[in-house]
Amino acid sequence: MSSGFDSRSAAAYSALFDELFPICRSITGPGLQRSLEIFQRFLPLEIESVASGCQVFDWQAPPEWRIRSARLTGPDGRVVVDFADSSLHVLNYSEPVSARLPLEELQPHLYSLPDQPDLVPYVTSYYDRSWGFCLPDRQRRALPAGDYTAEIDSEFVAGGVPYGWCDLPGDSDRLVQFSSYLCHPSLANNELSGPLVLLGLYRRIAGWRRRRHSYRFLLNPETIGSLCYLHGHHEELAERLVGGLVLTCLGGPKSTLSIKLSRREGSRVNRLAQHLARHEPERWKIRPFDPTGGSDERQFCAPGFDLPIGQAARTIYGEYAEYHTSGDDKAFMDLAQIVDAVDRLEAFARAFDETGVYVNQAPYGEPQLGRRGLYPSVNSPQHWGFSDDSTMDHRQILNSVLTILSYADGSRDLINIAERRGVPVEDLVPIVRRLESAGLLAFQAE
Amino acid sequence: MSSGFDSRSAAAYSALFDELFPICRSITGPGLQRSLEIFQRFLPLEIESVASGCQVFDWQAPPEWRIRSARLTGPDGRVVVDFADSSLHVLNYSEPVSARLPLEELQPHLYSLPDQPDLVPYVTSYYDRSWGFCLPDRQRRALPAGDYTAEIDSEFVAGGVPYGWCDLPGDSDRLVQFSSYLCHPSLANNELSGPLVLLGLYRRIAGWRRRRHSYRFLLNPETIGSLCYLHGHHEELAERLVGGLVLTCLGGPKSTLSIKLSRREGSRVNRLAQHLARHEPERWKIRPFDPTGGSDERQFCAPGFDLPIGQAARTIYGEYAEYHTSGDDKAFMDLAQIVDAVDRLEAFARAFDETGVYVNQAPYGEPQLGRRGLYPSVNSPQHWGFSDDSTMDHRQILNSVLTILSYADGSRDLINIAERRGVPVEDLVPIVRRLESAGLLAFQAE
Amino acid sequence: MSSGFDSRSAAAYSALFDELFPICRSITGPGLQRSLEIFQRFLPLEIESVASGCQVFDWQAPPEWRIRSARLTGPDGRVVVDFADSSLHVLNYSEPVSARLPLEELQPHLYSLPDQPDLVPYVTSYYDRSWGFCLPDRQRRALPAGDYTAEIDSEFVAGGVPYGWCDLPGDSDRLVQFSSYLCHPSLANNELSGPLVLLGLYRRIAGWRRRRHSYRFLLNPETIGSLCYLHGHHEELAERLVGGLVLTCLGGPKSTLSIKLSRREGSRVNRLAQHLARHEPERWKIRPFDPTGGSDERQFCAPGFDLPIGQAARTIYGEYAEYHTSGDDKAFMDLAQIVDAVDRLEAFARAFDETGVYVNQAPYGEPQLGRRGLYPSVNSPQHWGFSDDSTMDHRQILNSVLTILSYADGSRDLINIAERRGVPVEDLVPIVRRLESAGLLAFQAE
Repeated sequence: MSSGFDSRSAAAYSALFDELFPICRSITGPGLQRSLEIFQRFLPLEIESVASGCQVFDWQAPPEWRIRSARLTGPDGRVVVDFADSSLHVLNYSEPVSARLPLEELQPHLYSLPDQPDLVPYVTSYYDRSWGFCLPDRQRRALPAGDYTAEIDSEFVAGGVPYGWCDLPGDSDRLVQFSSYLCHPSLANNELSGPLVLLGLYRRIAGWRRRRHSYRFLLNPETIGSLCYLHGHHEELAERLVGGLVLTCLGGPKSTLSIKLSRREGSRVNRLAQHLARHEPERWKIRPFDPTGGSDERQFCAPGFDLPIGQAARTIYGEYAEYHTSGDDKAFMDLAQIVDAVDRLEAFARAFDETGVYVNQAPYGEPQLGRRGLYPSVNSPQHWGFSDDSTMDHRQILNSVLTILSYADGSRDLINIAERRGVPVEDLVPIVRRLESAGLLAFQAE
Repeated sequence: MSSGFDSRSAAAYSALFDELFPICRSITGPGLQRSLEIFQRFLPLEIESVASGCQVFDWQAPPEWRIRSARLTGPDGRVVVDFADSSLHVLNYSEPVSARLPLEELQPHLYSLPDQPDLVPYVTSYYDRSWGFCLPDRQRRALPAGDYTAEIDSEFVAGGVPYGWCDLPGDSDRLVQFSSYLCHPSLANNELSGPLVLLGLYRRIAGWRRRRHSYRFLLNPETIGSLCYLHGHHEELAERLVGGLVLTCLGGPKSTLSIKLSRREGSRVNRLAQHLARHEPERWKIRPFDPTGGSDERQFCAPGFDLPIGQAARTIYGEYAEYHTSGDDKAFMDLAQIVDAVDRLEAFARAFDETGVYVNQAPYGEPQLGRRGLYPSVNSPQHWGFSDDSTMDHRQILNSVLTILSYADGSRDLINIAERRGVPVEDLVPIVRRLESAGLLAFQAE
Repeated sequence: MSSGFDSRSAAAYSALFDELFPICRSITGPGLQRSLEIFQRFLPLEIESVASGCQVFDWQAPPEWRIRSARLTGPDGRVVVDFADSSLHVLNYSEPVSARLPLEELQPHLYSLPDQPDLVPYVTSYYDRSWGFCLPDRQRRALPAGDYTAEIDSEFVAGGVPYGWCDLPGDSDRLVQFSSYLCHPSLANNELSGPLVLLGLYRRIAGWRRRRHSYRFLLNPETIGSLCYLHGHHEELAERLVGGLVLTCLGGPKSTLSIKLSRREGSRVNRLAQHLARHEPERWKIRPFDPTGGSDERQFCAPGFDLPIGQAARTIYGEYAEYHTSGDDKAFMDLAQIVDAVDRLEAFARAFDETGVYVNQAPYGEPQLGRRGLYPSVNSPQHWGFSDDSTMDHRQILNSVLTILSYADGSRDLINIAERRGVPVEDLVPIVRRLESAGLLAFQAE
């Protein structure tokens, strides 16, 4: 495992991006396997797999798809498209074919975008056997009549749906999960942005001096992969998970990160996102929970699990024309946005880590703050006896001390208290630490 | 029992109206009995009765009032008013009298309306023995001085307070109740409109192919009659009743039906009314619960019962000058309004029937919709594999499918889910049925 | 105990004020003891004390401070300030000193207000041993260089923190507490206004014909004194207390009384204050709960106690320049404001006394109001059979009767019901009494 990855350097992500981009990933198969192994060089991922044919809740793990080559040749013998040029050219999960057929019969097997005539679309057919080629619409419209040769060398074999995860333990075993998906072939924003940010975030959180919670990092093929993970882990998650985010589409031109709330109203992940969006609207937006679109949070938030897992994104499916096309490339994604997303999500994780429930350890009246250096010993406006190295106004600090002690009754977390005090939660963090050191406050894992 | 009644034809209601209108009904007695028997020709009413003198919660069932004739004759021997002309001319529940008395002594026994000098008021004195005549104020002011003969041939006998009810069973024994009152003599909107609509509604619901709930139809004299019914049935209702409406004043010139909410905040009947008023404001209005006026919902909603029973009305007591006068007649009521009210309340009943709690039967993740024909098999905007006979947009249907499955967790009913999706609940009904057929959703009786 | 105190006469308060004002009070010591004894002439206070050195939650009861004299003499032998002139001239809780020292060394022991150069500040140092003199800044700036003689004859002895309380029992043992503090030397609004109003309120409530609750009156030194009281009484309070107010700063020029809400959201004391402020905004204002400032409610509302105790004030700390200075004197306080505050707080107490939970004793349907003279026996607008001596409109009374009976289900108190009816709670009080007499309503202690 390489420990030299610099999560603050776009260059570090760039080399990794270039290695991952060309690989033809799918929800199973060697491309996915290889991609997970590449990430294992940077994160100690444990790779688990659910065997093809296994029942996974309402689904069955599909057979593994192996693709070796795919080529469409024209009547004149010239190659129309070749999988070797781009993994997008083949319908993902195509069955094998070796056929000669006239253009009219070929047409139902061709996929293109009339409105974006120069882009190759990304198309899948995981659960209905089919084959096809994807190409620019301009090229398709120029295809001459005649007989074409379609050759796809693929096969379906008993294999499995793999996913990988690793943990960073903390003071409590209460778990915060960050996940992203690996299953799209050569796409950048809507594929590699999530895993790259996940990696950066892992490196950052691994470097914290203290973690109040434990952290899990998960990479899985979308939908079926998160269901396979849930199949093995949902009891553990029901017991331990206190919050999480699915990472997706974190590159692209939009400047503001947005958090899609989890289905669980009033969960801490939701309230933290709402709090941040209120206090730093230029940095954070929120989207409501919506089961009709999105990524793996649709599975994590399904009513049988109802996990407090939201989703973080920047330039979102449907908001950019390059979505699910060959236009979603490294230039579109922009590695500087990846580094920025790691910065932002580290801030989110840190705020989450600090905003649990704290309990006043001297709740019978106000504790005697004076003998702990937290209250002016002489009651006169000209003499604040209270020594402090902070740049905050002493009266503001004392007010925060009193507000925290008053509301830290076990029924409210630090976000509630910050909202009541009308300040960003990060203003309270140093005061919480001081009160903890003074023995007046204790963190209580959820 | 006649099965030929056409609930969509004003003419059907017209003949029945003409038969019922002249009868002198009260809270007990032969007029009420006869009226219930007339309704038995169309509804299989079981008639129950609480005997005079029985304690009914805080009340006692009153003695039965029998009135045979009543006539007031002037000093010149001319008849001033005669019960034979209109049952309104006698104070309802008058004690017998046979007296000759001067105009001054008669005056306290006369009832008229100075502001509506041509109308006969409807007046009752159920629990305080008294006698009296009701007449137009114009006629009263023209009465010459002299001695009048007051003859009322009535008696109070041991009898009972009768009421009639019948049920239409459904898939579950959870009960929805519609009721109206029978006890006012010759009045139209504030008497016969309710029972006529109740009859129409019975015919409609009897014709449904499927009922998820069971339905009860009740006719009772107002207040004491609903208390007598509750006396015999409140334990059953506490156990089974999930919603209901009292029907009253459903004719008259106002165009919009309104639902008075039940006392039980957040009950399904309240939320459905609020939902309909939000989505079809031209068809539905809501009124808040108010214990200071109304009809039998005052008894059903009393704190000891607290049943989720609202009230439906169109042209309401106090909103029309003809209220409780001889002006409240067939022309004022307008039979076309009765047919319209049956249409509207059938729609309400159907919406109630469908809007219970449904539970996702595959709640662990999204179920695999594709193999059930509910999801596009090829993930490309140009290929929606999903076949559907609806005129709705396929993406909208899929979004409704996903929303229903996400929120059908047993804690929300279909109204909640429609509100979250921002659509009228009726848009979700066909989708619910499809998900039920696919085994993905099950109705859960409350 | 004098029973001749007239709580409606400013003169009665004036003599008492003049007796109390010069005494040098502190959180312990003979001045405080003497002040409590003076109040014992008017209230049957039981005086309790926590001995110096005892652990009181997070605090220790301090040693008793005894001060006999204090004088600062200038280089010329002239007296600069003398404790005999005003108890404010000495730093409260000064340790003894007898020293000759140059002006530069004296300066750190002097307290004055540059922005209010003619006023003597009130300064304390209870828990940090120190000594000092307080004087007008104008005088301080004119002090000549040279050697000064500082003489403070004080001592710290084993004693205790005393407080006094008495009860007025009522129909139920549920307790309402009014308290104020005694610990500031010669200050008026921010010291004597509270105890004087407490005394007036005691006299008023003692004169009530009926008390539904029991009432406690408490005088204690601020902060440590309320903690000492809580130390001995918190279990009793947790069991019995249903509401209360700390009285402070009830004189001064502001016209409107304000209630600071207790920390307990939705408590009756909070809802009553909100109700009064809504209905009589010219008489009542509310302030949110705030742990960062205030008086003993900070202790009563601490999370370990969480008592529903608010605070009543008029001209509040920080809203007037005379706060904690020699400018806070009898003229500033204004005795007419004291009498007015007693009037207002008696109204508050009376409203609190009446606004508990009442339970409908005939909840199964509407009770038969007619036979109790609460309903018109003849149902005609011209005949309201209902006899009543009130000036209220009969229909309004009946509506209030019906609303109270409908909502008096044990889950709502009278404030909730008044809010629902949209009337001030005092409008419902006579109706509640009538329903109680009729056996239809029973008061239910919380």
